[in-house]
Amino acid sequence: MIIMSVTATKQQVDSVIKELDKCGLDAVTTTSTNRAVVFPVGDESHTDLSHLLSFPGVKEVMVVEAPYRLINRELHERLGWHLDYKVRVRDLEFGGSKPIYIAGPCAVESKFQILRTARAVKAAGASVLRGGVFKPRTSVHAFQGLGNTGEAEEALFWLRVAGDDTGMSVVSEVRGESNVNLVAKYADILQIGSRNMYNQDLLTRVAKTGKPILLKRHFGASIEEFLSLAEYIAAQGNINIILCERGVVPVGKGKSFTRYLLDIGAVPVIQKETFLPVIVDPSHAAGRRDLIKSFSYAAIAAGASGLMIESCPSPAEARVDGQQQITPDELKDLIITCNGISQDVREV
Amino acid sequence: MIIMSVTATKQQVDSVIKELDKCGLDAVTTTSTNRAVVFPVGDESHTDLSHLLSFPGVKEVMVVEAPYRLINRELHERLGWHLDYKVRVRDLEFGGSKPIYIAGPCAVESKFQILRTARAVKAAGASVLRGGVFKPRTSVHAFQGLGNTGEAEEALFWLRVAGDDTGMSVVSEVRGESNVNLVAKYADILQIGSRNMYNQDLLTRVAKTGKPILLKRHFGASIEEFLSLAEYIAAQGNINIILCERGVVPVGKGKSFTRYLLDIGAVPVIQKETFLPVIVDPSHAAGRRDLIKSFSYAAIAAGASGLMIESCPSPAEARVDGQQQITPDELKDLIITCNGISQDVREV
Amino acid sequence: MIIMSVTATKQQVDSVIKELDKCGLDAVTTTSTNRAVVFPVGDESHTDLSHLLSFPGVKEVMVVEAPYRLINRELHERLGWHLDYKVRVRDLEFGGSKPIYIAGPCAVESKFQILRTARAVKAAGASVLRGGVFKPRTSVHAFQGLGNTGEAEEALFWLRVAGDDTGMSVVSEVRGESNVNLVAKYADILQIGSRNMYNQDLLTRVAKTGKPILLKRHFGASIEEFLSLAEYIAAQGNINIILCERGVVPVGKGKSFTRYLLDIGAVPVIQKETFLPVIVDPSHAAGRRDLIKSFSYAAIAAGASGLMIESCPSPAEARVDGQQQITPDELKDLIITCNGISQDVREV
Amino acid sequence: MIIMSVTATKQQVDSVIKELDKCGLDAVTTTSTNRAVVFPVGDESHTDLSHLLSFPGVKEVMVVEAPYRLINRELHERLGWHLDYKVRVRDLEFGGSKPIYIAGPCAVESKFQILRTARAVKAAGASVLRGGVFKPRTSVHAFQGLGNTGEAEEALFWLRVAGDDTGMSVVSEVRGESNVNLVAKYADILQIGSRNMYNQDLLTRVAKTGKPILLKRHFGASIEEFLSLAEYIAAQGNINIILCERGVVPVGKGKSFTRYLLDIGAVPVIQKETFLPVIVDPSHAAGRRDLIKSFSYAAIAAGASGLMIESCPSPAEARVDGQQQITPDELKDLIITCNGISQDVREV
Repeated sequence: MIIMSVTATKQQVDSVIKELDKCGLDAVTTTSTNRAVVFPVGDESHTDLSHLLSFPGVKEVMVVEAPYRLINRELHERLGWHLDYKVRVRDLEFGGSKPIYIAGPCAVESKFQILRTARAVKAAGASVLRGGVFKPRTSVHAFQGLGNTGEAEEALFWLRVAGDDTGMSVVSEVRGESNVNLVAKYADILQIGSRNMYNQDLLTRVAKTGKPILLKRHFGASIEEFLSLAEYIAAQGNINIILCERGVVPVGKGKSFTRYLLDIGAVPVIQKETFLPVIVDPSHAAGRRDLIKSFSYAAIAAGASGLMIESCPSPAEARVDGQQQITPDELKDLIITCNGISQDVREV
Repeated sequence: MIIMSVTATKQQVDSVIKELDKCGLDAVTTTSTNRAVVFPVGDESHTDLSHLLSFPGVKEVMVVEAPYRLINRELHERLGWHLDYKVRVRDLEFGGSKPIYIAGPCAVESKFQILRTARAVKAAGASVLRGGVFKPRTSVHAFQGLGNTGEAEEALFWLRVAGDDTGMSVVSEVRGESNVNLVAKYADILQIGSRNMYNQDLLTRVAKTGKPILLKRHFGASIEEFLSLAEYIAAQGNINIILCERGVVPVGKGKSFTRYLLDIGAVPVIQKETFLPVIVDPSHAAGRRDLIKSFSYAAIAAGASGLMIESCPSPAEARVDGQQQITPDELKDLIITCNGISQDVREV
Repeated sequence: MIIMSVTATKQQVDSVIKELDKCGLDAVTTTSTNRAVVFPVGDESHTDLSHLLSFPGVKEVMVVEAPYRLINRELHERLGWHLDYKVRVRDLEFGGSKPIYIAGPCAVESKFQILRTARAVKAAGASVLRGGVFKPRTSVHAFQGLGNTGEAEEALFWLRVAGDDTGMSVVSEVRGESNVNLVAKYADILQIGSRNMYNQDLLTRVAKTGKPILLKRHFGASIEEFLSLAEYIAAQGNINIILCERGVVPVGKGKSFTRYLLDIGAVPVIQKETFLPVIVDPSHAAGRRDLIKSFSYAAIAAGASGLMIESCPSPAEARVDGQQQITPDELKDLIITCNGISQDVREV
Repeated sequence: MIIMSVTATKQQVDSVIKELDKCGLDAVTTTSTNRAVVFPVGDESHTDLSHLLSFPGVKEVMVVEAPYRLINRELHERLGWHLDYKVRVRDLEFGGSKPIYIAGPCAVESKFQILRTARAVKAAGASVLRGGVFKPRTSVHAFQGLGNTGEAEEALFWLRVAGDDTGMSVVSEVRGESNVNLVAKYADILQIGSRNMYNQDLLTRVAKTGKPILLKRHFGASIEEFLSLAEYIAAQGNINIILCERGVVPVGKGKSFTRYLLDIGAVPVIQKETFLPVIVDPSHAAGRRDLIKSFSYAAIAAGASGLMIESCPSPAEARVDGQQQITPDELKDLIITCNGISQDVREV
């Protein structure tokens, strides 16, 4: 980490970046404070950067060991940055004082379905509309969204219209590098699903769009791995990252009764380790409708900045994950209680 | 499961039990309703019990497949039992409308320590005093409580006195079969620690005391295993069982930042699967003081019937687990917020 | 699965494929026997295909439930196919009577390094040369191969030259969709690393090259998931798939002493579930040089069709994973013993 | 660790032990070399033992950090002990140059069954007879051996007779503290099952019998935990410990196709970490007959000192685990191949 002096010129910063390039390293420059700081990106284990100290404008060269540095709370607090960081999506702030509710169907299935659902979840208190078009699935023989049927752009267009119609922002999943541009054309937030968390080329690619990224934790990943992969996005100079806990693989032999095991501790841990907002997806964690409430209450009580909930007016008709979707009426009650819990917790 | 008719006599019940004994099966008889029901205990997979239908007083012979039957909510709801079951410990009710707070040091270390701590946690809002005398530890070279130093009875006596002095009930851990009588002499609730969850001979032995049992989930056990082992206690005719979620082994490679991973979903799942109360131990799950609050809030929001929290006035001086203990002042604030969350959640 | 009659014409097969397309399904046609069989690919759960029975040339319509069908041994044995399936790479056969040894450095680092290593591992008994150019890494700050430094094509070219120089086939990893064409230009086998196992868009993309694919199991994946993802490759009509077990995340709290836990049982299980060859990577599983031998012996004893071992003349100088690389001398001894074990096991 | 001088007297050793006792520590004294060494047992973290240096006869006071010290290979090699340690059971040596095969039924079911099975497995090449009388089971409603039916002593007597009749040693499981004396009366080796690995009071109790102990790893335990718990046995001065790997909980979502996941790496790791022999139980790991061979071959190839295999003439009739038992004929072939692999591996 190269900390420039307050009076360093742009040329001086550039010559540091040029020198890093000679050493085979990329660079991310932050100017969120009164001085520039250059973060080398890449393998610096074999490179001694201390000679940069003699470059004009360089105040300090700091060695950082953590696998995530650009999103590291402790590091930034030491420098006085991002003490109150928020990810802004249109008029919304993830990480602010109020939880944000993302809701909608698992997959966009038709124009009627998404428009109807958008109005219903908006009325229930949601402010971001979700809807998958490119769905990653373990089995090639399972429904993978309209993205696989040649109706991808049409589905994304409907989603956008539904968002605009209701004044909601829109989030949709990117499944492969070739989907990025198309999804980015219509969605406000690009989602990286659990199965793609380790897909560093995709992370790099979506980061370059500059759009906010909703990154889900892989169901087998430790928190350290999760944050290390989020760093790939930040390494492109994009820290509009919303982290999402969605459950990990259950423990032990025998039945666990839920689809995944919600790691509620990930919420406060990530808040201590990074300055990024963290939300929870109770729907995929529970995998069953009757537990969505408990999981949501727990998430907000643990301090989550928001929830991502599958909801549609007719869960029984959904082509994917109908068993874990709740109705907009249930969503409404849930949001009211969650807002109450949020106040209890924040008042402390 | 043999359901007797309303008019069946004790003799008729006895002859059913006798017949089960001939088949190599034990029996538990419930009389919590207007008719007796006899549950066979043991391996009935090779035994056809349908001939019992011809015994006088027998109304129905029902085959139940679940590995836990005596504590099974669905089964009991079908029979109209235990719809509102509570475990009573003196004047307290686990499973009632208010969360119960168990607090105290990890281990009883001295008379002064336990008396002082008891008063402090009582003032903070706790109603059960915890204090380990026989501590299971992974390493034989770690401190295992005063139970291993020949001061076991003295330590238990102090714990009892501290409970009586403050009007609190007392819970302490039983580590082996030879500890049972001694701990049962002083404690109101017998705790079976995580490492002993699979120790069926110990479960059978403590169950026979008739005392309420606080059974902790093993950190590698599925929920199904947890409930199957709880059934060993019920199989002795003792359903005064309080189940405790205390975190499972973290997932993935790399750091998880907490001692264990709190399985918050276990709370509502167990409440749906059994009629038994379930509490949460945030201290062992988090393993660090600064996360106890979030974990506790999440537990209560998920519907836990209580919390078991390590607390003492001087955590820094504790011989075991000091890093995860909170002060009585912190406990007090925590309890106030938890009570608020509990109301939010129950009002729904 | 639509089984055509022996006399069915190409036109009749085409009209079946056309009908599947109308139902939103892709198709893979196998002609490995005297009759064509059409496998639908995609979500057929909501589609009744029984009307295809009335199409001319259709003999049978069979519903298959398993998430992997195209690579399913039981299914193919029932049809008399692939009883002795082998993946051919130039003059080599994976799945034949002799184990195949893949060896080389973790990453291609220089022309000299790869040429020198190729000769050494060839002399030791290896017949396929490995060398990573695009390395997936958990940390963006770790060395990711020459692929990230702008020398990708040069590195692949060296690897190819080293293979040709020694008469060895060449395998190299594809990390993202944009790498596929470049790697396919130089390598005989395209490797998909552990972190990309769930990356279905990449699997689909590499499958289309028609080249043999070496698919590594994700370290958190069940065997069923592993095979379900391999099916994505087969769904493109490419069954030149070599499966590779490379260790899963260790169990429990505390030290495991190896980088990953080698799931040796995966070898015979995969051989019973599919007709595809399965090899083992002891280097990444063990993560330490002194255990490579034991892990390799166990793999061959369990029936593996080959091993993939990191080896180079100067492990201490390697930029990645030096601690788990063995020297060509050690490799030679290892191969001799493995060949002996292989004979012992096959003679039975 | 207190190393005495070569000329130290018994009185001098005793006064060291006395001093440790004053510090609240137990002691184990080894005299396997020309000088005595006293190992403190218990929590010495708060105790400075350096003053012992001034005691007459004390040569060195060494602080050891590992949670297992008494069974630690590195430590003992430094002192020149146990370089070639073997556990002797009658005329057998676990840890010697030849693998030892333990075989027999899962549970003793009748006199005829155990006598017949003993002769058959002896003829197949086994030299130790297994047979459970006290079976730990997850469900109280599963068959738990004749130990629970009042025929415990009879069953153990039959087992003993079958062993004597065939010249085999006998191993049987101890499930609770109250079983120890009875099993020790008849068996040569006392087995602690997977579910009891964390049961430290039971470990302490069986260790005191002085008999060889076969300790199985818990299916959720790390290797470090496994060895830490084995240290409880050594802490009683009993290092006749045979460690047994029997599979851990499978990884990931979806089917794994085996009952447990065999951690083959545990074999060489434990051999590097301790001087104790380690064997493998392929039967419980695989849980299915058709994989026992592969698992056994892998175990011997990895260097295991023996195998523990469930075998009986009529697996289909077994009351427990019939699906994983092989016939004596299959056992015979298996042993021949294993002996061949063992030679291949040891010749190196």
